[in-house]
Amino acid sequence: MADLEAERLARAYLLRVAEPPAPAVAEFVAAHGPVAAAEAIRAGDCPKRVQDETDARRSHDLSQRDLDEGARLGMRLLIPEDDDWPGWALLSLELAGSRGVPGVAPPLALWVRGAARLDDATTQAVAIVGARSATTYGEHVAGELAYALASQMVPIFSGAAYGIDGAAHRGALAASGTTVALLGCGLDAGYPAGHVVLLDKIAEHGGLVVSEYPPGTPPARHRFLVRNRLIAALSEGTIVVEAGHRSGARNTATTAGALGKVVMAVPGPVSSGMSIGCHELIREAGATLVASVDDVVETVGRLGTSRPEKVRSKRPTDGLGPDALRVHEALHRREGKSAEQISAESGVPVARVRALLPALELDEFAERCDSGWRAKVRR
Amino acid sequence: MADLEAERLARAYLLRVAEPPAPAVAEFVAAHGPVAAAEAIRAGDCPKRVQDETDARRSHDLSQRDLDEGARLGMRLLIPEDDDWPGWALLSLELAGSRGVPGVAPPLALWVRGAARLDDATTQAVAIVGARSATTYGEHVAGELAYALASQMVPIFSGAAYGIDGAAHRGALAASGTTVALLGCGLDAGYPAGHVVLLDKIAEHGGLVVSEYPPGTPPARHRFLVRNRLIAALSEGTIVVEAGHRSGARNTATTAGALGKVVMAVPGPVSSGMSIGCHELIREAGATLVASVDDVVETVGRLGTSRPEKVRSKRPTDGLGPDALRVHEALHRREGKSAEQISAESGVPVARVRALLPALELDEFAERCDSGWRAKVRR
Repeated sequence: MADLEAERLARAYLLRVAEPPAPAVAEFVAAHGPVAAAEAIRAGDCPKRVQDETDARRSHDLSQRDLDEGARLGMRLLIPEDDDWPGWALLSLELAGSRGVPGVAPPLALWVRGAARLDDATTQAVAIVGARSATTYGEHVAGELAYALASQMVPIFSGAAYGIDGAAHRGALAASGTTVALLGCGLDAGYPAGHVVLLDKIAEHGGLVVSEYPPGTPPARHRFLVRNRLIAALSEGTIVVEAGHRSGARNTATTAGALGKVVMAVPGPVSSGMSIGCHELIREAGATLVASVDDVVETVGRLGTSRPEKVRSKRPTDGLGPDALRVHEALHRREGKSAEQISAESGVPVARVRALLPALELDEFAERCDSGWRAKVRR
Repeated sequence: MADLEAERLARAYLLRVAEPPAPAVAEFVAAHGPVAAAEAIRAGDCPKRVQDETDARRSHDLSQRDLDEGARLGMRLLIPEDDDWPGWALLSLELAGSRGVPGVAPPLALWVRGAARLDDATTQAVAIVGARSATTYGEHVAGELAYALASQMVPIFSGAAYGIDGAAHRGALAASGTTVALLGCGLDAGYPAGHVVLLDKIAEHGGLVVSEYPPGTPPARHRFLVRNRLIAALSEGTIVVEAGHRSGARNTATTAGALGKVVMAVPGPVSSGMSIGCHELIREAGATLVASVDDVVETVGRLGTSRPEKVRSKRPTDGLGPDALRVHEALHRREGKSAEQISAESGVPVARVRALLPALELDEFAERCDSGWRAKVRR
């Protein structure tokens, strides 16, 4: 576990050094691992693109302080090397990035408050987002949808803003469901001020409060937009309940669409300026109109888990999570390998490798042999 | 003109004898002309299918009385042989019928009140229909849409019912625009009772009140549904403003879709039972969401005149109206024919043939020769 903590420290450093989204840093870390990447960045010994994303703050190494401070404040730093990292959901960001969608680099790590597993919370999750200056109608609809979906075990993701976001979180809490708040500032920023108690409740009642910004990071407009990609990526589909002509909620919906996720919008009176964005999404952007919780379930269910198209192709390993995939790729067809060897080659922690191998065996992706584990040839 | 009046008398008889829609009678009349068809039906000397549609009432010849009574009440019987017959718009019914859509036989004639030309009124017309038990919201939106469209010279068609229909007619009248009311009863039925004054106003202020039912025909539920096909056919697109889960307005929208016309629906609060039908149309039936008059103009304009696909094909004669088409088809490539001959062969009145031939010549569909008129071979 020493490696894991070194990786956590490295990623705490990287999160503070690179303002998200940092596509060059994300690639650099994916290629070299977080520890080596952090060292190279700290030393300024990295490609120009990576330097551009890190030069301003690379000497600010507050990683240990951040981890200590985070622990004191009841947060932890969730990293891709942890087994509750939502790698599957976040894969949509990597795939969109590789298709050329801008601004969708995956997060280097996530600060988290709350006891739930984030990977579990992303399963069949729905995001409900909308205007801060929502109407009574919009807040009512958001609350009712969140309550009904959470009652059916659908986790509700949102952005903790006033208006629609708050109503969605509260609706899910009222149903004792899981709700996850993604913030555009540090988890200790006390923002939005009127939702500090709400965020505490979310963290204490089986939900999660999540941010890629280190403790102490103040809110900023661009951070909300950057944060929106995480709301879009971590849920199966995004519902916009109320939105003006130009709005952050529409930005989340557009991102969700670019990630291959389901985009839904709730209609409202045509005389309401707060429904204009929803009507435009339906009319011009192909969003699906949802007027009831049944509509939402039918829409999300109909499209299944809405995995981006590249992953929907016919390869049998498409059903595997990212760790299982990495383990499977480390297996050889003839020669067996030990769990330790597989761990070293795949970068997946050995405990997780040991947990995944029997599952891979059950699904006929792996088999035991005299010298350990090898890939099973599928016909 | 003696022919034309004989045809009018024959069609007055046919309208009373055959309860619309009467596909077999419509075909029979198209094949033999109204005078011969009426004679054959009166004598019971016609195919079984035609007999089935006419046997119950074929001895009720009230045609002269209907024409006299109609004239006394300020109505006239518009027939396909008249040059203001909306043959182009109604062609959508014939084409849909030939594709197997049920219940869309074209009308044999139309009773009309008001001085306007119905063929002109159908040009770029929009139908606005919806629930009788509309909300204040729905009536407001219907009135505003009708007012704004009528101000832009778009004729507004509707069904004269309470609620949305009435609001649409009133909105168009307020803009001094053209509005056309299609009834499911005789024009003298005084129905709906609360709209008698509204219907008088429509007829007196440049609009039209139209029905295929002879004077004295009482309203009936099935007649409203049958009437809906005319609302759908005579307009370029249908807007449903409010509609319950099952409603006549949805029936009009479905028919409009089957005719290849544009179907639009106005969203409303998801908490309103009167918007359920609109949301279902958008969500499940592919209706285009319209939230403003600009949306309507863009939708109807974008699809142009929305002619059914079969007519959109590349034949050069596709741009011709039905009478011009019939005249053109009666022309020979080599031998010239007189206007009288062409009239006899095409069934188009000779005065109209004389009026159409120079236009066909101008468009290079016809040319003069020593023996009269012949088809021009187009390269």
